[in-house]
Amino acid sequence: MTPFEYLKQNESKRFQDLFSLLRFPTVSAKSEHKEDIIACAEWLKLHLGELGFKATLYPTKGHPIVYAEYIVDKKLPTVLYYGHYDVQPPEPLDLWKTPPFEPQIKDGYILARGACDDKGQFFAQIKGLEAVIKTSGTLPVNVKFLIEGEEESHSANLPVFIKKNKKLLRAEVVVVSDTAQFNKELPAVTFGLRGIAFVEVFVYGPNKDLHSGGFGGAVGNPINILCTMVGKLHDKDGKIAIPGFYKDCKPISRWVKNQLKKLPYNETNFKKAIGIPALHGEKGYTTYEKLTSRPTCDANGITGGYQGEGGKTIIPAMASCKITMRLVPDMNPHDICDKIEKYLMKIAPKTVRVKVNKHGGARAVEVPVDGPWLEAAGRAIKAGFGKEPVFIKEGGSIPIAVEFKETLGIDTLFIGFGQNDDNIHSPNERFRVVDFENGCKTAAVLPFELARVDK
Amino acid sequence: MTPFEYLKQNESKRFQDLFSLLRFPTVSAKSEHKEDIIACAEWLKLHLGELGFKATLYPTKGHPIVYAEYIVDKKLPTVLYYGHYDVQPPEPLDLWKTPPFEPQIKDGYILARGACDDKGQFFAQIKGLEAVIKTSGTLPVNVKFLIEGEEESHSANLPVFIKKNKKLLRAEVVVVSDTAQFNKELPAVTFGLRGIAFVEVFVYGPNKDLHSGGFGGAVGNPINILCTMVGKLHDKDGKIAIPGFYKDCKPISRWVKNQLKKLPYNETNFKKAIGIPALHGEKGYTTYEKLTSRPTCDANGITGGYQGEGGKTIIPAMASCKITMRLVPDMNPHDICDKIEKYLMKIAPKTVRVKVNKHGGARAVEVPVDGPWLEAAGRAIKAGFGKEPVFIKEGGSIPIAVEFKETLGIDTLFIGFGQNDDNIHSPNERFRVVDFENGCKTAAVLPFELARVDK
Repeated sequence: MTPFEYLKQNESKRFQDLFSLLRFPTVSAKSEHKEDIIACAEWLKLHLGELGFKATLYPTKGHPIVYAEYIVDKKLPTVLYYGHYDVQPPEPLDLWKTPPFEPQIKDGYILARGACDDKGQFFAQIKGLEAVIKTSGTLPVNVKFLIEGEEESHSANLPVFIKKNKKLLRAEVVVVSDTAQFNKELPAVTFGLRGIAFVEVFVYGPNKDLHSGGFGGAVGNPINILCTMVGKLHDKDGKIAIPGFYKDCKPISRWVKNQLKKLPYNETNFKKAIGIPALHGEKGYTTYEKLTSRPTCDANGITGGYQGEGGKTIIPAMASCKITMRLVPDMNPHDICDKIEKYLMKIAPKTVRVKVNKHGGARAVEVPVDGPWLEAAGRAIKAGFGKEPVFIKEGGSIPIAVEFKETLGIDTLFIGFGQNDDNIHSPNERFRVVDFENGCKTAAVLPFELARVDK
Repeated sequence: MTPFEYLKQNESKRFQDLFSLLRFPTVSAKSEHKEDIIACAEWLKLHLGELGFKATLYPTKGHPIVYAEYIVDKKLPTVLYYGHYDVQPPEPLDLWKTPPFEPQIKDGYILARGACDDKGQFFAQIKGLEAVIKTSGTLPVNVKFLIEGEEESHSANLPVFIKKNKKLLRAEVVVVSDTAQFNKELPAVTFGLRGIAFVEVFVYGPNKDLHSGGFGGAVGNPINILCTMVGKLHDKDGKIAIPGFYKDCKPISRWVKNQLKKLPYNETNFKKAIGIPALHGEKGYTTYEKLTSRPTCDANGITGGYQGEGGKTIIPAMASCKITMRLVPDMNPHDICDKIEKYLMKIAPKTVRVKVNKHGGARAVEVPVDGPWLEAAGRAIKAGFGKEPVFIKEGGSIPIAVEFKETLGIDTLFIGFGQNDDNIHSPNERFRVVDFENGCKTAAVLPFELARVDK
């Protein structure tokens, strides 16, 4: 039996296993889900153990890391697979058509929070390897799995783990399936991702909510002031107005510009799919460049005062805003956090107190496109999807790839099985059944292709 | 027995009755409290009926109006008492030291939502009149009560009721106890109040929350855009930047300036009491002038995107903000709503859709200070509080006073028993026991003083 035949024969069990994994509400941002997260990690350990992996849970200050290895022969190349079993918060819940943690298949899609980001994707890798193990009794390479539970909470504890376990994690190449294909017709290998920096801004005014009649006019209003400050993050041309923000921002190279230009990118379809009246952003760049190769500064949430039905005539005691910035090479997230803090403190009026919580982030990442690993990945994708893949950049961030490069010296292959309209981080997250299937197939071929590289 | 003796003898029953009234969670802004509001109106009808009033509930499109009258003799002057039995939402609940709808007395204060605004205050008027009725068997004037349930929701239905019931409401003067004294040492009659205008701004971006990595840079972010727009409501000098905003704004007269200057107003104490690092506002005016005699534009609530623990890297589908503006004579609330809408639509970028819900409001009100009614009110306050009152302006709004003047042609006496630190519209609303007691006494003297005016 070939691995592809095995996948076909075990289809029903494979989906059952995936659904078990998707049912855990592993929202890492919320402490109320601590127990669910531990249960999911235990389940993964057990599952990998059953396939012949030596699996262990490593506790962290936050959520546990699942580590598993299948060592065939020290002379063979070693591949480190990375994934994350935590998910984004499902809110707003009322916009979900099916409950986020009750997975189901409908109209060719697997529906659930985490279906695509990232449970469904790293699980395709596991299931592909399972097909190889079950049909040949071994693997053509040594395999290590590192599956964390804090990716959606900025991987707070993983870098420390990597630094402490360099030997354990030693490998020739990292494989990450946590990105999207170019579109439904074009599978892809991603050669670049943006970095990220995250801050929260708090504006404190009076010591309690005040009546806006009795106090309005002489008391600095935290909402008005926060708005003025956030409003000053961009200039009229859509450029970010934080002094020094673009200092380390590498211009888009001619090679990348050409590469991106080759892709059949359709701005009208993009605009239509998300229902916006006009495209937005920095002058002088194409939409695809703006989405993948230029930095951003987006408020992700804002809150202050009375938000219920009707009105409440108050000057609130405080207001706050969550802001993330996407970074490109060679921007440093800590430097960017310092710069936005300095700027916000400078433009804040003396009538309020302002605090900026700096959560750091990760640098952008770029993989050399002409390396043998990328070519091997391309061959595996062709075998799995039946089509030659394109080489693309993505606007999202996989911070841990920077750690792999800087701490372990290993390049990462971004072999994404998702689609851009899979609603990751949004209500109704989904993953195409056909992408999951072709992902499993790709994963069953990939170790053979990677084994060839070192020969 | 004198009315004052009656009040003393019935102290315990009087507080029991007040507590019954305060226990109804009559939050008019929230539809979930509809039944509580009806129950409270029924309770008031019953209570006034027991005192000899002919009491009726008038249904409206919103919450019912309690109307009650005690007609002694058509030749006597008629006094129309206005109050409201609805209250502000109690949120944020976690900041209350005692449950908002479980009234109690502690350290000389009655603690409950509505204790001061306005249940405790209009109830003092009822209890003062009760003392007169119970000790003399009648009243020296005809009395009408109009107690509405929508004041904290902008009295949406009261103006229609007043227009339809001009004859029913005919009176020589209106009495409203819904303001504050100057301070704990100085009782006051209020001769001016600001008006109000209320709008809600909605900014709609993509058709769902989007991943800020995959979409950031080419999609207008509703939070960033809303902030920029709200930030442009004021200029650098604290002036409101809406074109034409100040067009009908009457300058503060020399007489009012002098009147306000006479009051022992302490800016340092004001700043300290509310815990702000510096005073804020329009240049060229004293704090007391800014609080009472200049218009404002305050955001009362803002909401958008992810507001929970941790982060969520999204571009939200929408963001919104509630804004109220305090008005001074002769600003028109509908005109002001139109102007802010026009301005916001003009400064909104084409990358989003913007909607402004205009809720209207009320003009400011000023009562002539040298009239005989104000003098009579002053004498009643002196009898109740044992001190000569001062004449003051307040920054809050009692929109219905404008209706009384414009529709019925009647001036309003603002006889407030509260204090500026009674936390109205804030957590831990309270009302001094001594202010409630002196309020009841004032109310027992007031009808006699008002009866003298017409003689």
